This record gives sequence, C-alpha cells and structure tokens, in this order.
Amino acid sequence: MHTVLESKTKTVIIGEGLPFVMIGEKINPSGRKKLGAEMAEGNFERVKRDAIAQVAAGAHMLDVNAGYPLGDEPAMLKQAIQVTQSVVDVPLCLDSSVFEALEAALAAYQGKPLVNSVTGEDERLELILPLIKKYNAAVIGIANDETGISMDPEIRLSIAEKIVQRAADYGIPPEDVVIDPLALTVAADPTAIQITLETIRLIRQNLGVNMTCGAGNTSFGLPQRAPLTAAYLSMAMYAGLTSAITDAMNETIRAAVMASDVMLGHDAYAVNWIADFRAKQKAAAG
Amino acid sequence: MHTVLESKTKTVIIGEGLPFVMIGEKINPSGRKKLGAEMAEGNFERVKRDAIAQVAAGAHMLDVNAGYPLGDEPAMLKQAIQVTQSVVDVPLCLDSSVFEALEAALAAYQGKPLVNSVTGEDERLELILPLIKKYNAAVIGIANDETGISMDPEIRLSIAEKIVQRAADYGIPPEDVVIDPLALTVAADPTAIQITLETIRLIRQNLGVNMTCGAGNTSFGLPQRAPLTAAYLSMAMYAGLTSAITDAMNETIRAAVMASDVMLGHDAYAVNWIADFRAKQKAAAG
Repeated sequence: MHTVLESKTKTVIIGEGLPFVMIGEKINPSGRKKLGAEMAEGNFERVKRDAIAQVAAGAHMLDVNAGYPLGDEPAMLKQAIQVTQSVVDVPLCLDSSVFEALEAALAAYQGKPLVNSVTGEDERLELILPLIKKYNAAVIGIANDETGISMDPEIRLSIAEKIVQRAADYGIPPEDVVIDPLALTVAADPTAIQITLETIRLIRQNLGVNMTCGAGNTSFGLPQRAPLTAAYLSMAMYAGLTSAITDAMNETIRAAVMASDVMLGHDAYAVNWIADFRAKQKAAAG
Repeated sequence: MHTVLESKTKTVIIGEGLPFVMIGEKINPSGRKKLGAEMAEGNFERVKRDAIAQVAAGAHMLDVNAGYPLGDEPAMLKQAIQVTQSVVDVPLCLDSSVFEALEAALAAYQGKPLVNSVTGEDERLELILPLIKKYNAAVIGIANDETGISMDPEIRLSIAEKIVQRAADYGIPPEDVVIDPLALTVAADPTAIQITLETIRLIRQNLGVNMTCGAGNTSFGLPQRAPLTAAYLSMAMYAGLTSAITDAMNETIRAAVMASDVMLGHDAYAVNWIADFRAKQKAAAG
C-alpha cells in the first residue's frame, strides 16, 4: 500500500518495501520554550533554520507543530506551514490536536499533507475525518480510544481497524490512513516495546496499512538516548513500521534507519547507502 | 532454554529473555596474516592482548581460531586456548573445522566450552558429535548440509531440526546445541538478511533452541560496516537470535546490542545500560 504525500513540487511515498520515511520532529514547541515564544511573537527564523537543517540532514518530510500555551495556535500553525513551505520542498505533517489549527493549516498548505492526528475516539473521528476528506489529505490514526491506551496488541489492532473502517465511511481510502501503533517509553515498562512491536506486526499482517510513530518516546527518561531509539527503529522496521517522526539530524538514528533499509532489502545493493558514504567522503575532502 | 558455558571460574548463560551474549571474534588468523604467522611461530602475545582487550570492552565469551596455512592447527589451537584461559576468565568458543584441532582444544580446555562448529552433513555429525558428548561440551550447528546453503528458511529449519535430533541420538540435550541460521552478506543478495531473519523466527518458534551467528558477514563488502552490522543485530535479536560472534570492541555494535536488550525487556529498567553509562562517565572524569 502506498501513501502518497506531496508538497508543491515533491512527492514522497510511504510504503512496504520502500526506503523508510523519516519525518523530522524538530519544529515543535513542546520542550522547546524559546521556539514557542518566538513563534507566538511572529518570529519564524528558528522554524526556517530548523526546516532547512533537517532536510539537509536527510529528513524526507517535516512535522510542524505550533502548540504553545496562550498562543493563537491556528494562526501560528498556518504561518509556520507557510514559512516552512517557503524554505524547503518536502511534504509536511500538520501536527495539532486543535481542530481550528488543522483547518487553518490545511487551507494554507500547498500539496497533499499528512495530518497528525486523529485517535480512535468517536468524537475525534467525526470531527477530523470530514476535514481530511475535504482537503484530500492523509491522516495519522493513533491506536487508542475513549478507553485509553491498551497494553494488549490485539486491542490496538482493533482500534486501528476501526479507524481505517471509519475513514472508508467518509470516503478516505486505507492508503491515506497511517496508523500510529503507539511507542511508549521502555524506562517505565520493560514490556512497552515488545507490545509496540507486536502491534506493528499484527497491523502489517492484518491491515497492511502504513505506520508511523514518535520514535523518541521509546528512550525517554534514559541516558544515551540515540542508540536506544536507533535499536527500536531497526526492530520496528523489521516488524513493519514504514515511517517515523524522529530526529533525522542525529547521525546514529539516521545511520540505523538507512542501514536497516539495506538489511531489509529496501535499499537493494545498498545504492543509497553507498551514495551517502561517497557524499560524506566528498564533504570531508572538500 | 538455557545454554550454560563455563570457564574455570565463570558461567555464561545464553537464553531467550536474557541479555544477548557477545562472543568476541578477534582471535582468528583469517584476514589477519600477522596474527597467524605469530601463532605459527609460537608467539601468542597478540592473542593475549586481543583476549584482554575484548573482555575489557564487554565480550561475554571469546572465539578462538587457529586456522593458518601450513600451521600445525591442533598444536596452535591447543596453545591458543591455554594462553587465552591464562589471561581472561570468560568461557571460550573453540573454533576449527579440523577434528584433531577440536580434539586437542577440548582436552586442553578447562570448563564447558562451545565448539564451533558442526554442519548438518552426516559425515560431520558422525565425526564431531561423539567428541562433544565425550567432553560434555555445547556445539554450534550450522544450518547447511551436503546440498549446500539453502535460501529457503524452511529448509534451513529442517537442517537445524536434523542437527538437534542427531545430537539427541548421541545423548546431547537440545540446550547444548546452538544453531547458526547463516547470515550471508546483503551486498551480494538483497534478500539474504530477510531469509536469515525468517530462519531465526522459524527456529525460535519451532525448535526453541539458542542461536548464534557471525554477524560481520552481513555487512561484508560494504562501506561503513558497523551501523549495518548493528542494525542486523537489533533485528535478529527481535527475531530470536540470542548470541553472536562479533566485534565486541566496536562501540556502535556494542551499543546496539545493549540498547536492543533494553528495548526487548532483556535488560529490565535499563539496569545494565545505566551502569554502562555511569562507568563511561566515571572513566571520562577520571
């Protein structure tokens, strides 16, 4: 199944057997007070720099979030989207839990974006899905609902099935639904990632839709986080994850993703891997 | 299933759900002409240094191989084993395809070693298994036979089953058979690792025995090998690999193995991971 995302000029495809899609996570004020304060003041210089740097590092898409206490999120997200599209050409992931912010962002976005996100809660589905259909966007569906986050992979699968089905009811095809299987921090629960991996495997097997997740959550609260996140991504890619919102600027994470693509045959004969190596050699020599 | 290996003073257990066992690969003259020449001359200083350095870096066991053209392999392997046991206390993996070398090494070894290896070929099984039984050792069984290396995971599984069954006929329990699912280089065949991973999964599911493999093979012929080998190991650990003969001195590989143990819940609450981090901090400060 191919999920096609577009900017004005560029197409990115998320799909099984294709190279993994890294969605840069940096443009997000949560945990970045300064960024949030600047955005609220209408200063988007840091957004521009972060956008350019992430794409230069190899991000295939960028997540853009403008959630900030007391900020005018619809206006901020709209402007962040416009500014980001003015400096980079990759498709974007419009990230908000506020309906009005998503509406403003979708109206401003040029191309076919990924909307982050809807849950399996009836109220959220009824609110967000018509908007996705109206703008012909794709949407991330998170595998939790009114009952919270289940630690049973079969229940997460059933919520994913519900989201895909409900999307179909609104005329949104399964390839435009990207499920987030939910990756929690392993520091709090040693079984957290086993549950995520089994959820990914079940969704791959039973639904066949694309999947993404916030990879950094997995290593939250632990020291030396990059190798932990990297190990998670390698395992999740083998289980069937086809995309992640992650720190594409971290070389350990980026190398693990590219290496896993080689190992899984998604970068046959290591064409991308070798090109990346040569580019690094050239950069080092120049 | 627990495979118990012993030196004079130390026990290492390979098992599902336990931290992954890294077997240091360095004491092997193949590709290390100088080491082989020194060993043939009776100079084992480099063997000593390599043994100490690998254990210091975190290797749980060491592979010892003395194959060298025109060398007296039984005498060389015997001496290498004795020298290695005199400087480090980890259990060893006695590595040779020569019956007389394994016999000499087993007679000299103190403890319960892992013998590397036997294949599924009838002639090899009949030759090696009585020796394993006589010395109460454990043995690596490689999942190929007279017909060569199959690219069908089901056939590799059936060869593994044959080895475990034949070992049982000689009175060797399944926990003393560690299957090598065969990891070939992905540079030559983009499907090579998918086949290895599926073989591991099938063996885990159907036989339940422990597994090991030469991890470095996977990245042979490619640049920037460590992240490739590391990504393979993370995926293989998730599939069910419980041990590998690898470069334990490479920090990328070592971090990936330890991180995967955290993610899979084999290092619950990251106790080993955090201890390793603190040891590094202390070393950096001191």
